[in-house]
Amino acid sequence: MSKVIVNKEKIEEILTRGVEEIIDYENLKKRLLKGERLRIKYGIDPTGEKLHLGHAAVLWKLKDFQDLGHQIVLIIGDYTAQIGDPSDRLEKRPFLSLEQVKENMKTYKKQIGLILDISKVEWHRNSEWLAKLTPIQIDKLAELFTVQQLLARRNFRQRLERKEEISLRELHYPLYQGYDSVKVRADLEIGGSDQLFNLLAGRKIQEAFGQKPQDILTLKMLEGLDGEKMSKTRGNIVNFIDPPEEIYGKIMSLHDDLIIKYFELCTRLPLKEISNLKSELKKGKNPRDIKAKLAFEIVKLYYGQEKAKKAEEEFNRVFKEKKLPSKIISFKVKAQEYDPLELLVNLKLAKSKSEARRLIEQRGVKIDGKTIENWREKIKIFKETIIRVGPRRFVKLDV
Amino acid sequence: MSKVIVNKEKIEEILTRGVEEIIDYENLKKRLLKGERLRIKYGIDPTGEKLHLGHAAVLWKLKDFQDLGHQIVLIIGDYTAQIGDPSDRLEKRPFLSLEQVKENMKTYKKQIGLILDISKVEWHRNSEWLAKLTPIQIDKLAELFTVQQLLARRNFRQRLERKEEISLRELHYPLYQGYDSVKVRADLEIGGSDQLFNLLAGRKIQEAFGQKPQDILTLKMLEGLDGEKMSKTRGNIVNFIDPPEEIYGKIMSLHDDLIIKYFELCTRLPLKEISNLKSELKKGKNPRDIKAKLAFEIVKLYYGQEKAKKAEEEFNRVFKEKKLPSKIISFKVKAQEYDPLELLVNLKLAKSKSEARRLIEQRGVKIDGKTIENWREKIKIFKETIIRVGPRRFVKLDV
Repeated sequence: MSKVIVNKEKIEEILTRGVEEIIDYENLKKRLLKGERLRIKYGIDPTGEKLHLGHAAVLWKLKDFQDLGHQIVLIIGDYTAQIGDPSDRLEKRPFLSLEQVKENMKTYKKQIGLILDISKVEWHRNSEWLAKLTPIQIDKLAELFTVQQLLARRNFRQRLERKEEISLRELHYPLYQGYDSVKVRADLEIGGSDQLFNLLAGRKIQEAFGQKPQDILTLKMLEGLDGEKMSKTRGNIVNFIDPPEEIYGKIMSLHDDLIIKYFELCTRLPLKEISNLKSELKKGKNPRDIKAKLAFEIVKLYYGQEKAKKAEEEFNRVFKEKKLPSKIISFKVKAQEYDPLELLVNLKLAKSKSEARRLIEQRGVKIDGKTIENWREKIKIFKETIIRVGPRRFVKLDV
Repeated sequence: MSKVIVNKEKIEEILTRGVEEIIDYENLKKRLLKGERLRIKYGIDPTGEKLHLGHAAVLWKLKDFQDLGHQIVLIIGDYTAQIGDPSDRLEKRPFLSLEQVKENMKTYKKQIGLILDISKVEWHRNSEWLAKLTPIQIDKLAELFTVQQLLARRNFRQRLERKEEISLRELHYPLYQGYDSVKVRADLEIGGSDQLFNLLAGRKIQEAFGQKPQDILTLKMLEGLDGEKMSKTRGNIVNFIDPPEEIYGKIMSLHDDLIIKYFELCTRLPLKEISNLKSELKKGKNPRDIKAKLAFEIVKLYYGQEKAKKAEEEFNRVFKEKKLPSKIISFKVKAQEYDPLELLVNLKLAKSKSEARRLIEQRGVKIDGKTIENWREKIKIFKETIIRVGPRRFVKLDV
């Protein structure tokens, strides 16, 4: 068993940087300072293919603990993903099929490996034990909670007030997540602040099983680029396996108010430097320049210094100097008139005609720098032409 | 397969006598008149040792269907008894252990056999399938209901208003009972009117499993002897395997308002005769005499004419003629002073000193016809003495 490092300063930073709440703070701090080796649990439900910067924030926190020699226990919620965590939801989640879940899981290890030393991680899939629960065991878990306690969660209260349906199935989620803590004998569980209810359920269930209740560390919620809740349909999420140029460009679109929070949660820049940046912002420095540093730092974390530099150059080339990207895909086409919707779909710049239409209506499609105004009007392609969709996607048509 | 009898008059009576509600009435009547052989489900949870007249009312309804040739499917809820049906409850039921449930089940078949031809009954214990449910199956059942639907039940609403706890476990009950209907492919389920919610859940779950939803027949609720909800602790329940004298005597203590309802639900007397008795009551006939007929009819159902006659005579001997019972247990004791609490416990007239004290405080203990006023005062036994506890329990002490 590896030795645990007791570094008072480092521990102090771990317990504050990006942290929303710790229960029980005194206990956790004491154990860390004593050099006790903790089993630190984090659960990820494979409800999508890619992990985003919100996940990364937790994974970097785990990385800090791992660097001190603690045992990271990762639970891939292949069972709970099917049930669906209602934590951050104001709508009912759909039931995922096991096939969808398996598909989603495929790239998780690789993504997590970009942050943690996965050879030192203890891995579990919670179907290992949850799929084997007997009905009586489930009912004994259910017995530990009153309906009133479960419905007291903020998002459930809101849904009740709005007379929106809450499925009985959704009430089961914290039971399962809590039981995971029993099975891995977690000393500490880490999650986003919207996870507080589930994490507390873990304490209660561990106690019912005669275990010491886990401590809890929640991180501040990371909003999406536009300051709203992260949502795939809003497109305000940054996945850290996105290509470097995409990460860089997306971060450059970040809402100015979130710059410092993103530095704190999404980079490894020392808090002191972040504090300096905060002062510079206050003194009136152009947020664009600070954001450029943020984008660079984030790309660097996942792709290294060189690729971060390249992403920066590419961004400046296109957005500052208004040049074409250094690499651009080109297609050979006949000189003729084209239906713009068909053209966008054929060039794979839109998934469907309806998406193509939406892009045009949102004034997001340009031909040689000129916005297409009307999707019903055919376009004449009679010379080399550049089509640009959104800020970052370019295609060259060779006639 | 036995032939189904189509007797229009009989069917009409079955669908009205003691009936609270039928869903779907038209459908059920049509099927019965067509001579379709129905699978008729009734579930009993072995939460106690003895079945009472409330159970009997349902069993007699089943007997009518059985006599017409329909298939009675009895489900002994050995699984659901552990979870606990919250239907008729304003408090949380305790979790029963499997051992308690098994103990309770022992005499069920014998008791049911007093009413139904058990050789023609299809028997199941719902642990056969419920104990094998996987978590995903349970969650898929849970998915069929919203929390709001489940909490809309009258008794849950009342408990919410009174801020009394509702365990999440209690919300599972209708899921299980409904799934039973799927497993036995019930065409019709019968129950007390407090079961309506569970029976409707059965319809919903059957539909989700691609089955035709069962029809539902609920019976009027049978109150206890004092007009309150049946309750062991109130002692207002008549178990039909109680000794004849006890049944007879208890029925004679029935609240007058319930006489006709008890005739309808607990006897086989034709509705026309019951209607005549109702008129007689209205015209001012002494309810005591009508009740004597009721008591006689009920005892006769379970013990036959002769024993019913004897129970009647015994009752009259003790309560009309104020004589001692014809049979009386006697004990040989020393002439001396006795602590009344110890004496009652030793004679098995009370289970504990605290019960003995309560009996005395309620003025329910007499010595040679004289009520004991003070449980602290010793009693002198110096000659043959009769101790009477409540209306019907006598013991003779021989000195």
